[in-house]
Parts: sequence; structure tokens; C-alpha cells
Amino acid sequence: MYQKLLEEIYAEIQPEIGKGKVADYIPALKNADPKQFGISVCNINQEVTSLGDAQQRFSIQSISKVFTLTMAFQVLGDKLWERVGKEPSGNPFNSLIQLERENGIPRNPFINAGALVITDILISLLDNPKQDLLSFLKELCNCSNIHFDPVIAQSEKEHGFTNAALVNYMKSHGNIKNDVEEVLDLYFHQCSILMNCEQLAKSFLFLANHGVIPHSNQRVLTRSQAKRLNAIMLSCGLYDQAGDFAYLVGLPGKSGVAGGISAIMPEQMSITVWSPALNRHGNSHAGMKALELFTTKTGISIF
Amino acid sequence: MYQKLLEEIYAEIQPEIGKGKVADYIPALKNADPKQFGISVCNINQEVTSLGDAQQRFSIQSISKVFTLTMAFQVLGDKLWERVGKEPSGNPFNSLIQLERENGIPRNPFINAGALVITDILISLLDNPKQDLLSFLKELCNCSNIHFDPVIAQSEKEHGFTNAALVNYMKSHGNIKNDVEEVLDLYFHQCSILMNCEQLAKSFLFLANHGVIPHSNQRVLTRSQAKRLNAIMLSCGLYDQAGDFAYLVGLPGKSGVAGGISAIMPEQMSITVWSPALNRHGNSHAGMKALELFTTKTGISIF
Amino acid sequence: MYQKLLEEIYAEIQPEIGKGKVADYIPALKNADPKQFGISVCNINQEVTSLGDAQQRFSIQSISKVFTLTMAFQVLGDKLWERVGKEPSGNPFNSLIQLERENGIPRNPFINAGALVITDILISLLDNPKQDLLSFLKELCNCSNIHFDPVIAQSEKEHGFTNAALVNYMKSHGNIKNDVEEVLDLYFHQCSILMNCEQLAKSFLFLANHGVIPHSNQRVLTRSQAKRLNAIMLSCGLYDQAGDFAYLVGLPGKSGVAGGISAIMPEQMSITVWSPALNRHGNSHAGMKALELFTTKTGISIF
Amino acid sequence: MYQKLLEEIYAEIQPEIGKGKVADYIPALKNADPKQFGISVCNINQEVTSLGDAQQRFSIQSISKVFTLTMAFQVLGDKLWERVGKEPSGNPFNSLIQLERENGIPRNPFINAGALVITDILISLLDNPKQDLLSFLKELCNCSNIHFDPVIAQSEKEHGFTNAALVNYMKSHGNIKNDVEEVLDLYFHQCSILMNCEQLAKSFLFLANHGVIPHSNQRVLTRSQAKRLNAIMLSCGLYDQAGDFAYLVGLPGKSGVAGGISAIMPEQMSITVWSPALNRHGNSHAGMKALELFTTKTGISIF
Repeated sequence: MYQKLLEEIYAEIQPEIGKGKVADYIPALKNADPKQFGISVCNINQEVTSLGDAQQRFSIQSISKVFTLTMAFQVLGDKLWERVGKEPSGNPFNSLIQLERENGIPRNPFINAGALVITDILISLLDNPKQDLLSFLKELCNCSNIHFDPVIAQSEKEHGFTNAALVNYMKSHGNIKNDVEEVLDLYFHQCSILMNCEQLAKSFLFLANHGVIPHSNQRVLTRSQAKRLNAIMLSCGLYDQAGDFAYLVGLPGKSGVAGGISAIMPEQMSITVWSPALNRHGNSHAGMKALELFTTKTGISIF
Repeated sequence: MYQKLLEEIYAEIQPEIGKGKVADYIPALKNADPKQFGISVCNINQEVTSLGDAQQRFSIQSISKVFTLTMAFQVLGDKLWERVGKEPSGNPFNSLIQLERENGIPRNPFINAGALVITDILISLLDNPKQDLLSFLKELCNCSNIHFDPVIAQSEKEHGFTNAALVNYMKSHGNIKNDVEEVLDLYFHQCSILMNCEQLAKSFLFLANHGVIPHSNQRVLTRSQAKRLNAIMLSCGLYDQAGDFAYLVGLPGKSGVAGGISAIMPEQMSITVWSPALNRHGNSHAGMKALELFTTKTGISIF
Repeated sequence: MYQKLLEEIYAEIQPEIGKGKVADYIPALKNADPKQFGISVCNINQEVTSLGDAQQRFSIQSISKVFTLTMAFQVLGDKLWERVGKEPSGNPFNSLIQLERENGIPRNPFINAGALVITDILISLLDNPKQDLLSFLKELCNCSNIHFDPVIAQSEKEHGFTNAALVNYMKSHGNIKNDVEEVLDLYFHQCSILMNCEQLAKSFLFLANHGVIPHSNQRVLTRSQAKRLNAIMLSCGLYDQAGDFAYLVGLPGKSGVAGGISAIMPEQMSITVWSPALNRHGNSHAGMKALELFTTKTGISIF
Repeated sequence: MYQKLLEEIYAEIQPEIGKGKVADYIPALKNADPKQFGISVCNINQEVTSLGDAQQRFSIQSISKVFTLTMAFQVLGDKLWERVGKEPSGNPFNSLIQLERENGIPRNPFINAGALVITDILISLLDNPKQDLLSFLKELCNCSNIHFDPVIAQSEKEHGFTNAALVNYMKSHGNIKNDVEEVLDLYFHQCSILMNCEQLAKSFLFLANHGVIPHSNQRVLTRSQAKRLNAIMLSCGLYDQAGDFAYLVGLPGKSGVAGGISAIMPEQMSITVWSPALNRHGNSHAGMKALELFTTKTGISIF
């Protein structure tokens, strides 16, 4: 359906692919080939169009924050906001300053501190959070082949001192209820989940479909909750580049440090791009450009 | 068209009207009657439905920032962003901390510092910025009866030390080009402009109409610029409650400290509410509630 | 020698004893009797005058930072300042904000972050840092009866999430070389060391004596280093009340959260007071008052 | 008396003279010859030893803060501290961040914001503050030849946007009582006062003499107040290099951006050095080095 458009974008985007810098804070990421680029569009009727390295798996990293937030939001509803805010942060994603000034309540669930609180909530709510998270993802994308990458999870753990600082600090403020190590373990695992563009595009479709998974007709969130989760993605999904993304792309989206970005257009479609080289804000350089081209060429925008 | 709906909202909102606190930083505002409430909806065909004190004029205050930004954006386009950012601030609207940390470049054009830079830009661009601003507003709302309130402008000036601090600080960083007093004078005047809900609802219509004023068919912004201005309103329009507004209301909007809030739904309509009592974030308490009810009842949302 | 003076101070200070709040962040401290008060003065000839609960042991807590700094300074000299600053912090003792803004380099060795770096340095330098620290203290005060309080050390560990956050954060910046748990373990142990006013007064005497322990004639620091350590105590020894202490007392000193304060007058004497109830800055309320009275009555001051 | 010593220092200091950067924020300062260097020592018996450009006048800039503080302290005593703190700031001298966080109460009287409050206090207390300040200085140094430099005062005013920001911001918090322009005018004048090393060394002598001017035997401050002012100089006198100065030099002192530094040794002497090239903290590079040499060679230190 979008085949020709994607080819056009792919051609135009060539000079941008590889620009920027692959994440190098853990060995497991820094060997990624910066020249890789994949894109998948999935419309509300579940028709998928893909191009480039769209079948190549990568660790979803912070994109997982959308899935864990959905799981916690499903159960707790608006009670969730007692432990985490929903305002944009205006600071880099791992900032301690905001946390100190606001007594251990993270600004939103998409900065690391907020996502760690969500992870802590899942541990309290679920008997087998790791398995439950994988099961949820399998349902979302209608595919049983999803698992953690143990090498990445271990590597994250070995270099996860900033996240350990965040969890310990929030624990000192009473905003982490479970054991510090347990929270970090689940968090590093969720970041390590391997998915490809197609799987991610399918998985985000319920957010474009008022909270219902199209292929199974299963309701994940209420209509209102789905809108609200999209609102949070729009204002907080791309760290301190959220305003830029709203301005240039105009869709709710979430990025990860391995180079993935997933976005949705309500009632229409879901798009995932992936290219490992990052701009200085930690978002995929070519991914941003591709999404900007996509919405410019199609005129699609929530605004 | 929306008569019945507005009456329903008006009935439900009664207990909320007057809750909160009227702005009291200048004498000219603190005598406002907190029990006033007006609402106007204007659809893309210019049909207006109003209720309550929708004809009552009030000072538009920070809502003027949308108009001045439009005027500067029209002329400078993306060059504008060299002097002001477009990221949410995460801090109260008059914060000096962000400004100091980022060397005098305000985070976005809707916090005071950013709006003051826009005002400075207009002084450089225009021969008669005060008259030009009024003329622009008269065109937008198709009404010649719009002027400054000299008492409010004077009162703002006499108590405008925080804004004077902001302008001086940015001048010390070279981000204000004109005389400090001249910038403050225009800024206090733009805040003092008197308009009512109907006039504001009509004036915002071009943002719901891809940049074109419906009644005159005049293009104010390109299609892309109009979207982008909406994106900035969504992420930055309600100070440190922008995330909350996106979550609860789900529309791009801008608030003022006299109690007005203007919002738009792309391709459909423009809404303005007014009620002087403010919540702790400086936004109209009843106005927020009314807009939340409106989008809940109609199901309207950009998400 | 100072018997009559101390009695006079003791009488005047009565109404102040017990004012404030005993530290309650760990169970092992919160049961301290706020009515306890001890004072010991030790002149350069090692004559000790004591009053009140001067024989009662308490955990020296942050006063230990002077001893660990001395041990590290002895070995590394000015090379030490590559990993920790020597400027007053202007922030509460456990602030993460300063640390984030200055890339993991703590402002000085007397805030927690700085002391944790010193502890890390000692682990790198010494084979048996715990035993070596106790041995050093035994030498300083000429008394073999000094040990850790395992209950306090364990209690600190169980509630030490803020310190864990600091160590992890500095580790993420490469400013902690050893294992996080090992650093915290030594740190919590050094805080738990039990000493009384007399032992502390004797132990600080080398700082009033140009770096030489009077009873053994052993040189601990060079003349210049001793002065410099005193300078750091003066500007950074009482957290965000350092300026106040310089103003009111006028001597270099260091306080601990169990209520001890040790101070010295160069070439003359060392004084330690102890009273568990703390003011809002975390310093002993009655201890501050007693030292202020002492210097006012004697006219002693470095200024 | 110190002739030989000063010559020795002068010889050793040669390679350091001119290192750094002359203040260039106003035209009137940036033309200073970086190769100038003067030093004067004045002992408690008013014997002066000078070398180099010790007769050359320069604008005393922030050294004036000691004189204005003395005048206000004399009248108000400890009541002064209701409007300004006495803790080191930990931030550069013109930081707005601290001011915002602490609601318009400057951290101490030696950062710009604090000095501006002191200036405001003098305007409230005195009929002719400019003349009174000059008269006070003439008394202190027993010399009638002291006046403002109108060119420097005017130049400061034309570039004084940061100070204007500070005054306006404090005014918005109610911590400035007089007209903004009047406060700035007196402040820029006090900074412009021309004095040479000898005059400054004599003027500081009362602080080394328990508050009494030696030549006239006139008491300026009580014994206790003089000590306390010295304590504030020690912890706050050299901006964010105060700790360093205490560590390296070990005397209470105050620096100015034209390259002067005045310091005192209680009961012994006063020293002023001057050399226009500044280090990155805004303190005279060669001046710091000369004072460090002086105290190292003489063994003089309050510690």
C-alpha cells in the first residue's frame, strides 16, 4: 500500500543513514552497523509494508516503556499518577536534578526514573513479570517469537550505574517498593527485548485503534486511556527532543537507544523505523528524518 | 449547533466556577469576579455558539503569545528558532533557572522569556508594532473593536520586575536587540489587549483551518507552519501543566492569567473558555474542567 | 584548666539541651537521649578538661571524614584534588544536583559524595582499610579501645539508599574505582565508629599542632597540609551551615549526625562537644551554642 | 620592614604576571595593561612596604563590597542577615539560579546579588550615600584623594544588564526597597572608586585591628563584628574560588574584577596586591600567586 512511498523515502534518506553515533555505553550495542535502516508501516487493517532491514531484530530499549506503562495503566488507571508525573521533563532522560527537586517523583513514565517506577509497580502487581511482559508482547504483535537478549541484559546491568543511582535515590524517598536489584533486573531485561520493525509496528497498532488489538479484537485500554497514553507519548516520548518531534513529525511516538522509533497516527496506522546511529539527543538520526519525510509527503499529522 | 452541549456543560460545571484564586499580582486583575464564566465554540464554517459571559471582555494576557508568535513566524519562518527553542520547559512560566543554564535562549515562545524574545523580534521587524498587532487581531476576528487597556498595561509595568529581570538577563546574553524599556512596553501592552470569548474563538480559527482565515480566505501561515504552531501549543501552551492538558483535554491550546483558554481541533473548530479563578499552575480552574468535559462528551481529541 | 569556664557554659547551656531533633533516619540513632551533653577541651600540652557526658561513646558519623581525608591526604598529597574539590558546596550534604552539574566530581571531601570518593581511595591504597582506620584512631587518641558498632553499620546499610545513589552515580562517571558494595561497606563502618568527647578531642590535637601528634611526637601531616586541612574544615565542615559556624564560632570544625562537633584552635587546643538533638541543618543544636559561648567567653577565634 | 621579602616575591612572580585575561565586559577595563603588578603590606603599626605599581590607581570593583557591608553592619548589626545570608554560594558570582531557588534572598553579601541588597540598604539608611561612602574610605585610609571614576561608572551602567536582572528579580521578591535605577547607580559608582594598593592596604587595617582604625583610634566595628566580617570574607570573599584561597593563602580576603585582592592577618597586617589579568574564576592570577608565596614564605596563616 505504501510501497512506493517507502521506496521514495528510502532513496531520499540514503545520505542521512549512518550519520550520528551508535550508542556505545555498553559493548553489546556499540558493534551495531550504523548503515542499517528498516521501516515498517502497518495500517489499521493490519496490512504491513516494509523496506530495508525491517526484519532485523534489535533491542527495543526505551520503546519497552510504552508496553510496561500500558500494563500498569491497565490495572491501576489514574491511580498510577500518584507515583509518577505526566509532564514533559525538559531535562535529559537520566537526570537526577529533577528527581531531587521533586522529592523522588519522576516527571513522566518515559524518562528512565519514571520507567523504573513503572517496573517497580509491575513487580508488585505480577507474579511473573518477565513472562507476563513477553506474553503481552506476543499477543500485541501476534507472534510467539519474542524473547530477552541475555547478553544485552547482562551488559546493561554491568554498566547500569546511573539507573542504579536513580532507583536507590527513589527508594530513599519511598517511591520504590521492591528490592533495588529486582527492579534493575526486570528493567534491564525489558530493555533487552529483541523485536524487528514489523513486530513493533504491529504491536503499536492498538494505540492507533482506540485501545483494541485489531487482529484479536481484544481491548487493552479504554478508548480514553488509549488517547491519554498517546498524549503522553506526544509530549514526553522523545526525551528532550519531544518538542522537536511534535514540530517536525507531528505524531505521538517513542524512541529507543538502539535506534528504533515507533509512532502512530490515530485511526490510521502505526510506523516503526530503525537505524542505529543516534543524534545528540539519543534518538535515531535517520529514523527522525524518515518519519519527517513520511508525514511531510503524506500530509499526515495529528495537528 | 453546540447549544445543547454547552448548556449541559454549563450546568455540570457550576460547582467548579469560582474555585481557585483570581490573579492578584496586579491590582487591575485582582478585582475580577471569580464567578464569571463564558464559553464560545466556533466551527470551521464560522458558526459561533456561546454561553454565559462570552461577550465580557478580559485581558488576553499570555494568549497574546500565540498572535505575536504567528506574526514573527510568518516573516522569519524556521530562522526564528535561532533565538528561542521549541521544547517544553518543565519549569514555571517565569523561571530564570532554565534561562541561566541555557545561556539566555528561552526554552519555547510560550514561557515569558520566550515571548519577550518574540516581542523584541517584532520591534525589529515592524514600524508600528502596537498598531500592527491590533490590526492583525482585527483581521483575525473580523471585528474592529479591539484595543489595549492602558490601566492594565500600566499596572503590569509597575509590577513587572520579574519580566524586567528576564529581559535584562537575556540582553546580557545578547538575545535582546532593542531597548529594554521598549520591549517591556510592547509586552505589557500585548498582555493588556481586551477581547471576549467570541472574538478569541474566531481569532484562533485559522489554526484549525491550515493557516487560512476562513472569513477572508487570507493565508496567515503555510499549512505546515500552522500544524507546527499547533504542535508547539500542545507541548508548551499551558506552562507546567501542558502534559496534564494534553492528557485531559487532548487539544492544542493556550492559556492566560486573566482566566482565558483558547484551544483548537484541527479541521473542525476553535473553542475559548474564560473564568478568572486560577488553579495553582496559573490556568483557569473552571476553564480546564469545561474543556475536559467538552472533549469527553464529544469524543473530540487529536489523539 | 578550663574547669570553671566549662561549668559556666554548662549552666548557661541548660535551656538549649534537648532542643532540636535527634537523627531518626536509622533506628540505631533515633533512640538517643536528647538530654545528653558532653564537652572536652584538650590543650596542646594534652591536658584534658571535661564535663557532662564526656565519657559516653557515640558514633562519630561524619567526623570520621576528617580522619579518612587525613589518611588519603598523607599518601596522595595534592594529587587528591583531581577526584574531589575543595570548595564549599552551598547545598545540603547529600545533594545530587551539584554532582550532576559537575560530572561526578564532588565539591569537597566533607559532603557525603566527597567522603565516599575518599573511602574509595582508601580501599585502593590500603590492604586492610577497616583495621588501618581503627589503628590510626588508636594512635591519634592514645587509646586502644576504639571499634565499629556493627548494629549501627548494619542499620546505616539498610537505610543507605541515598549514599548508594551517590556511589552509583559517581561510578557512572568513573569517579569510583572499586566495587559499589565495598565502598558503601567501609563508609558505613567508618560512620559507626564509637568514640567519646575526650577521645575525639585528643584525636584532633594534631590539627592544632601543625600536623604532629603531641603525645607521640609523630608527624601525620606536613605543617602546610595541616593548615590546609583546617582551611577545608573551616569552609566546608558544617554542611550548609559552614558560613554560620565560621561567623558564630570562628574555628575550623567538623560535625556528625549523632550530635558530635570537633573543632580546633591552631597552636592552642582542640574541643569536642556532643549532644544528640540536631538543628535543621543536621548539626547539634546545643553543641553549636556551647562552642559559640566558649569562643565568646574566651575571645578565642582564628579571625 | 617586608622590603626584602616583597622583592623576592616580585622576582619569583615575574613569569606569572600577565597570565590570564583582563576583564573585558566593559571598554573601560579591557584596556588595562596586563603586565602591571603592585603590592603593599601595611602592618598594625601603619608601616607600609610597597613594590611595583603600588601607587597606580585602579577601580576597586567588588572590593567595595567590604566597605559597604561594613557601613550597613555598623548600623544594623545582626538585623542585616534578615535580607542576605552568610553562607558560601558555590555558584559563580552573578548566578540567578541560587536567587530563584531561595526566593530572592542572596546567599551572602559578597556575591553581586547580596552586594546589591547592601547597596539598597545604604540608600535607605543614608542621606547622601555616595558622599558618605567616599568619606568613609577617606577616613579609613587617611587620604582625601579618593573619588569615583565617572567613565567606568557609566560604562558599567551601559553593560550592566546582569546586575539589572538581579535587582529586578529581587525587587519582584520584595527584597529591594528603593528604585531599581537608584540602586544600580550607587552600585556602579561604588565599583568605579579608584584606589591604589597602598590606600587599600591601609583601609583594610581596621579588620586586622579588631574593628578600630589604627591611625585615628576610631572604632568602626565591635571586636566581635570585625571577627565576623573576617569570617565572611574567608568563606565567601573570592567567589567560587573561596575554598581554594583559604587552602592556598589561608587569610580572609576580597577580590575585584579589575585585578585587586585585599587580605588581612588578624592582629598583624593587611596586604593588597593588584594585577589586571584574571584567572577563570575572575580573580587576579598573579595576585593569587603573590599572596600564596607571601604566606608560604612567612608561614603566616589563620590556620
